[in-house]
Parts: sequence; structure tokens; C-alpha cells
Amino acid sequence: MIAVQLENRRVSIIHVSKPRRPVGYSRIRLLCGGICNTDLELLQGYYGFSGIPGHEFVGEVVESDDPRLVGQRVVGEINLACRKCDWCKRGLDRHCPTRKVLGIVGHPGAFREYLTLPDVNLHVVPESMPNEVAVFSEPVAAACEILDQVSIPKYETIAVLGDGKLGLLISQVLHSTGHVVHQFGRHQDKLRIAQRMGVQTETVGKAVPLAAYGYVVDATGSSGGLSQAVRMTRPRGTVFLKSTIHDKVALDTAPIVVNEITLVGSRCGRFEPALRLLGRGAINVADMISGSMPLSEARRGFAQARRAGILKVLLHAD
Amino acid sequence: MIAVQLENRRVSIIHVSKPRRPVGYSRIRLLCGGICNTDLELLQGYYGFSGIPGHEFVGEVVESDDPRLVGQRVVGEINLACRKCDWCKRGLDRHCPTRKVLGIVGHPGAFREYLTLPDVNLHVVPESMPNEVAVFSEPVAAACEILDQVSIPKYETIAVLGDGKLGLLISQVLHSTGHVVHQFGRHQDKLRIAQRMGVQTETVGKAVPLAAYGYVVDATGSSGGLSQAVRMTRPRGTVFLKSTIHDKVALDTAPIVVNEITLVGSRCGRFEPALRLLGRGAINVADMISGSMPLSEARRGFAQARRAGILKVLLHAD
Repeated sequence: MIAVQLENRRVSIIHVSKPRRPVGYSRIRLLCGGICNTDLELLQGYYGFSGIPGHEFVGEVVESDDPRLVGQRVVGEINLACRKCDWCKRGLDRHCPTRKVLGIVGHPGAFREYLTLPDVNLHVVPESMPNEVAVFSEPVAAACEILDQVSIPKYETIAVLGDGKLGLLISQVLHSTGHVVHQFGRHQDKLRIAQRMGVQTETVGKAVPLAAYGYVVDATGSSGGLSQAVRMTRPRGTVFLKSTIHDKVALDTAPIVVNEITLVGSRCGRFEPALRLLGRGAINVADMISGSMPLSEARRGFAQARRAGILKVLLHAD
Repeated sequence: MIAVQLENRRVSIIHVSKPRRPVGYSRIRLLCGGICNTDLELLQGYYGFSGIPGHEFVGEVVESDDPRLVGQRVVGEINLACRKCDWCKRGLDRHCPTRKVLGIVGHPGAFREYLTLPDVNLHVVPESMPNEVAVFSEPVAAACEILDQVSIPKYETIAVLGDGKLGLLISQVLHSTGHVVHQFGRHQDKLRIAQRMGVQTETVGKAVPLAAYGYVVDATGSSGGLSQAVRMTRPRGTVFLKSTIHDKVALDTAPIVVNEITLVGSRCGRFEPALRLLGRGAINVADMISGSMPLSEARRGFAQARRAGILKVLLHAD
């Protein structure tokens, strides 16, 4: 079978044998995968990664110990936890210290014809949901994580900084749960995607409203995003850190202390609310798809995904 | 009357007239003041400060619209709020955007023979409490603020980084409320002060236990303290920022995002719990007094306070 390989900052298509299926795992035929910014970072050599990437996918279970799964379309949580440690016992398996992460740490990713994942990681996709929607489950779950971490009062207006893929999903998730969302970005065309769903958007330069929001999400992906978010936050307010930055950030911590601001790091989320939101059409993902091509053309897919202005690039079964 | 003046990085004793007492304010005769690190920073020219410093004090009310206050020994909250804005109405007067701050912003400080403060800022000191204890009310209140911000489960062991004045008060406050506290510092003699009250202490170099604590307080006052605190915090744990740093901090935000750590900025606190703790002898402040001299010798007091190894220097009425 074919698989995508990242090595020495290059994308190639390799031929490998079908993966062995350990007990408790399903073997899954890839239907559609999504290229995430993390995949682009892996390509740049972050985390010392070389191997098969891909953690956003929808596939069909072709072999499993659980007969109810066979033949089902599934999406899957990306953290492979030990299920034995204190963290796992407390339900925090996404923080299991010895976890592997699909396509990122210690477990080959989804950009291959067949992948494996533990049965417990899988969520069956409703029949009516197209592959091109279901493939967004993982990043939508990451957007939903904010709502699991902090109870935000309904009357609070939330600011979202950044109009990239994650920013657009976060603004829509928060809007869909009844919050008024002000999204700030630099690209009118991208902001329009969230706008169509009711999100209030604003194109900004360097000027942002100061100390104006009780809750601010930094999804800029840029090193200046956090400082900007802190400046926009009212005293005693909360900033969510959704951007992963690979350089050290030069941060003035004095306003955080003086204004008693809370910063909340936020990563992966549960798939259940994500599937519900996608199922009821609450998230405009269709307009976020910038390209779609067969897995065998992943090289071209990665090249497209790296270009400015591009949102989600999908890789589908050949 | 005499007052301490900071200007152009110099401490001097000046002669000024007694302060005018606005309606709703008390005039207070200084009994004892404490030199805080913030005062040393003001001396360095931070915040563009020039004027009369001092925000840790105990004094005697000599004139007030409230007859119950006259003759009483008092300590006072340092934020002078407008009492009219939305913040004040919500009880968050310490975050009033137009507040003045005693001896720091817009209101002359306590290092003068007579000072003024709004009556609502004053707390009567119990008769049995010596001046040298009551003068610690403000920094103990700042230490107590942590417990007002986050509900820490009783069984959680809390790490406190730093063995300066604030670190020693924080470790003792947390210990006094039933938490097991591990305090990390570089000075055996300073750590011993908290140790005597039951705090577990450890002298550290660069090595600290990694991902070991659910709650970590950075009171190092150093630019590396926050990163160290993040490294010591378990996934989903909380770091309190108590250090005010005047340079930008180079921070790796990736572990905050990946481990979903919460950072909580923490500044001033309520005086009520501070006075209660000081009243029942829960905080060893006696061993924290490195020097005591008359207000007229404040120049020498500031010089001593700046020296390495020195903790609290007190200035008392001549």
C-alpha cells in the first residue's frame, strides 16, 4: 500500500506493507485526511519528526476485535494512552505521560491507505455526514476544548484572534453555543467564512480594542498573538492559548500580574461535541476546503497547504 | 513634617506641609512602614516614579469624618478606587481603571509623618498586635490573594519558588491554611524562616522536580522563574505569577499549550484574612525583619534593603 513520508523536509510517497493490527486495535481504510498546520510543522522538522504524518481523518473499519465496528465509518482521537496510569484512571488520557500521538509521536499517521488505532479511540460517523465534513472532527474537537476547560457566562462576548483554520473553527464553535463572538483577522476572504455563520468579524492591522473582552482566544499562530490577546483582555479576564509557537515568545508578564489575567493553555478536545456540531451543520467547513486530491498526490497537497491564503487541503483515497 | 522622596534614583528626606484631608479620608500618623521590593523598583525609576513612596504601613488615625476611627491604629488597602465605575460596582475596586495607588500611582505614599487614605480603605488593627506585625498586612494580603482566586483542593501539595519576602509569606499563608507546601529557594537562612512554621523547604540549583505539582507559585522575582514553574507543573496544573518582571520574559509557550497549564496573574489581596492570620501568629514575620530605623534615616534603610540577603527593613516614627 502507499503512504506519505516526511523526511529531511521532503514529502514523498512510499510503499509499505499493511500495518499489523494489535489486540484491541482496528484496521482502518483511509477515506479522507486533512492536512493540518502541525503536519506542515512536522515537515519543517519540528519535534525531530520523520515518518508517516496525518491525524485528521475519516476511514472505514475493515478489521477489528469489535464486530460492531467493522464496516463503520469512523473518526479517531489521536492520543494513544496507556490506560493504566493515574492520568488515564482519572479520565485524562489525553495527558497520559507515555501516550503516543497518531502521526506525531510514536504511531504512524493517517496519511496511508490503511491505518490502525485502538478501538476506544474511534467514534462512528453518522451516515448522513459526508467524509469532507467528518474529516474536520479532530480540529473541531480542539476548538470545543475551550468550552470544557472554562465555564464562560453566556452573556460574555468572546474575542477570537486569528483567521486561520483553527481560528475559523473556534469562532464558529463558540458562536454555535450561543456566545457573541468578535473575530479579528487580516484576511477579509477568510473572515467571511465565519461571518456567513453569524460571527462578527473585523479586519485589523496593529490596532486592537484594549482591555475590552473578558475572554480572548489567541489562535493567530504568531509569536505576537499572545501579547495582543493580553492587551485586549479586561482585568480578571481569561486568555486561551491555542497557538503553538516554536520559538520562545517575548512576553511582558507585568500586565498579566497587575490585571490578574488568567492564561489557559488548550490543546485537543473530546470528539462527541465536535460530531454533534458538525452533524447539525453548525460549522461552515465547506468553505474552508481549499483543495482536495488523491493520497498519491500528497506532495502537491503539502505544497498547496503551505501557500499563503490556503485553508484546508484534503487527501482522499485513490 | 518630614517625608521620604525618591527622585532620579536618589532617596532624600524632604520637609513638606501636612497633607490636606479630603472628605471621606482620614489623616493618619505613621507608626511604622515597610520597604517593599516595589519601592526599590520605584527607586530604580520604574513606572517613571518620582515622589513619596511607601504602601506598607501601620498608623494612628488623628483626624477623620468617622469618629469611630479617630485614635485607632489602622492598616490600609493601597488602591484608591473611584467607587463609581462598573469595576467598583462589581466589588473589583482593586481593578478600577482610574484607581490611584498609595505610594505608587497618583497618591503620595506612607513614608511621611502623616498620610491620608479614604476611610473605606482602613482596617483597624487588634490591640494585641504589635506594629512590627501589623505592618506586614499588605504583603500578607497579597499572599492570601492566591486563595481567593483559585480553589485549591486540600490534599494538593503546592510548590512555591523563591525565598524572598513575598515567597516566604506565600509559603506560610498556604501552609497555615492546611496545604502541604514545598518551598524552593537558594538561601538556607531565608528558607529556615518558613521551615520553622512547618513549611518543607529545599535548596535548589538549576535542577527542580519536573511535572511534579498540580499548583506552583512563582515568587522568584526573576525572569527565569515562570519557565521553571511551568516545567514543575503537571499537565492541567496551575501556575500563579506573583513575580513582577520589568523586562520581557522569553517564554516557551508550547508546554503551556500541550500540557494545558493555566497561568494565573496575582497581585493585591483582601486585608481581612491577612489580619486574621497575623492575629493568630500563623506567619513568622519576626524573623523576616532585617532592620528597623527611624523614618528620618530612610536613606540608610533603602541602602540596607537593596543589599543581598536582606529581607524586610522597617521605618518607624521618629
